[in-house]
Amino acid sequence: MAPQSQSQPPPPSSEDKTEALDALLHAFGFEIEEVTPRKVCGHFRVTEKSCQPFKVLHGGVSALISESLASMGAHLASGLQRVAGIQLSINHLNRAELGDLIYTEASPISVGKTIQVWEVRLSKMDPSNSDIKSLVSSSRVTLLCNMHVPEHAKDAGQALKKYAKL
Amino acid sequence: MAPQSQSQPPPPSSEDKTEALDALLHAFGFEIEEVTPRKVCGHFRVTEKSCQPFKVLHGGVSALISESLASMGAHLASGLQRVAGIQLSINHLNRAELGDLIYTEASPISVGKTIQVWEVRLSKMDPSNSDIKSLVSSSRVTLLCNMHVPEHAKDAGQALKKYAKL
Amino acid sequence: MAPQSQSQPPPPSSEDKTEALDALLHAFGFEIEEVTPRKVCGHFRVTEKSCQPFKVLHGGVSALISESLASMGAHLASGLQRVAGIQLSINHLNRAELGDLIYTEASPISVGKTIQVWEVRLSKMDPSNSDIKSLVSSSRVTLLCNMHVPEHAKDAGQALKKYAKL
Amino acid sequence: MAPQSQSQPPPPSSEDKTEALDALLHAFGFEIEEVTPRKVCGHFRVTEKSCQPFKVLHGGVSALISESLASMGAHLASGLQRVAGIQLSINHLNRAELGDLIYTEASPISVGKTIQVWEVRLSKMDPSNSDIKSLVSSSRVTLLCNMHVPEHAKDAGQALKKYAKL
Repeated sequence: MAPQSQSQPPPPSSEDKTEALDALLHAFGFEIEEVTPRKVCGHFRVTEKSCQPFKVLHGGVSALISESLASMGAHLASGLQRVAGIQLSINHLNRAELGDLIYTEASPISVGKTIQVWEVRLSKMDPSNSDIKSLVSSSRVTLLCNMHVPEHAKDAGQALKKYAKL
Repeated sequence: MAPQSQSQPPPPSSEDKTEALDALLHAFGFEIEEVTPRKVCGHFRVTEKSCQPFKVLHGGVSALISESLASMGAHLASGLQRVAGIQLSINHLNRAELGDLIYTEASPISVGKTIQVWEVRLSKMDPSNSDIKSLVSSSRVTLLCNMHVPEHAKDAGQALKKYAKL
Repeated sequence: MAPQSQSQPPPPSSEDKTEALDALLHAFGFEIEEVTPRKVCGHFRVTEKSCQPFKVLHGGVSALISESLASMGAHLASGLQRVAGIQLSINHLNRAELGDLIYTEASPISVGKTIQVWEVRLSKMDPSNSDIKSLVSSSRVTLLCNMHVPEHAKDAGQALKKYAKL
Repeated sequence: MAPQSQSQPPPPSSEDKTEALDALLHAFGFEIEEVTPRKVCGHFRVTEKSCQPFKVLHGGVSALISESLASMGAHLASGLQRVAGIQLSINHLNRAELGDLIYTEASPISVGKTIQVWEVRLSKMDPSNSDIKSLVSSSRVTLLCNMHVPEHAKDAGQALKKYAKL
């Protein structure tokens, strides 16, 4: 492989990317892999930080991830207008336990000018072969999209522009 | 104020209580005030830790808080059986910004043997007079209740027993 | 009772009102009592027409009623702009059986310029004293409100204007 | 085509089937095509009977259809135990107008012993070529499944057994 020229820095790690895009996701070890207007995906391992007292993945964490990934995707799909989640409905289907590896994927169900609806699925992975073992949760996020970006938030989309594939 | 006798330790701070009951809530500064089978409530101030990139309260944090408080309440209302959130529906109604003080209250809508449904409301407070200024979000959490407590999780309810008013 | 003057017709029956406002509700015997921007309410008796095969109230009927009453209320609260339900979340809490009398009330949780959220509750009544016996379902209807009224639908709000208290 | 022998009656029309399976669906012209534990589907044309005053498909009808098809499917998938819908979340995505042909399909997302979750999609069809033109609504129905069948409802599953492919 040819050496990279100095003008082209190495691609950012998914850790750096996540920290820049959503500090809350980063806080419990989520790593964003891909951010496009048609798909936002990433993964994390269930640790004490994302568990409830019964040592299983906290349902609120699944909801938080869903809201985050859907917001990024909708933000991109709306051409970097401000978006706001107005409704989230999530079904918790199978529990994930300490140590489980969770893959998450968000994709749009409907992209209108005013309203977008995204679906987000969290799945337990088989670490030996990357196969999906079972669905942990499935959610729908409804977002309002044609919103004005206030002056003080003009650079909120910068990180997204930097890391996304448009 | 009279010195407290040694046999009666000082009541736990709401910070300690929250750390023992739900480490995730504690991580962004939530303080649980009261935990009973009829009401679970607490408050927090919106900081960078609970915001999304537009500097407003992350909708996923509202969802996480809702799931947490409803689970504690349902756990108590079921007589400390294991409960599992199976569905969460949340409407985000008004945004909360950096510095806002948020009061949260969960109360049961329906307490059956198998299914409980809890409502959780997050409200912005007027810090000068403790009045509610506006509703930030309103959610419904559906929980499955008659679940077996596995051996390794037998002590998951201990903190709740310690801090709850039954 | 004194004869009514010709200039003041008798008030419409709640049956006529319902037929004019929502033919679908009328079809299974629902009677709208009151329509205002702050409250829409009515009642019906569970008959074969509103049951599923197990002879209990069809959950889909509860959803249909919720969507209808919330739409009427939001339509009024928006100043008779066109509104469109974009999301409905309903919890079915207790079953209602053939012959049960059901009271329904819709009220706004949040009335914004773009988005309104209404709550709708169906309750079983004690026919002897009009007390609420138990909650049958509780729902949240999210509506988009600032919508253009197309020319061909200009008179869709007429019945509402006629029967509502503004 | 060869004449059918007397021992084999003609297959029931989808109209008869729908009337037997769900009188409410039949009332506005819905025709069930297929009922299996993995898929329940059917279609209908939008008429005055299924419209709201703006002459578009009543969102409550979409909810009712979703609840019905998911219930049939879950009833079959549970081995004809009694099931009860406990939560429905529906997103209305694109409107359907008078005369539109709507195809509906329900499929299971998760089939547990206690809880099942089904997804139901309503789509506008292009009548000339049976292609899906756009998604009208997408919903999630959560059902409680391990319920006792009371004596008086023992034959509620008969129609389903007759018309379903198990």
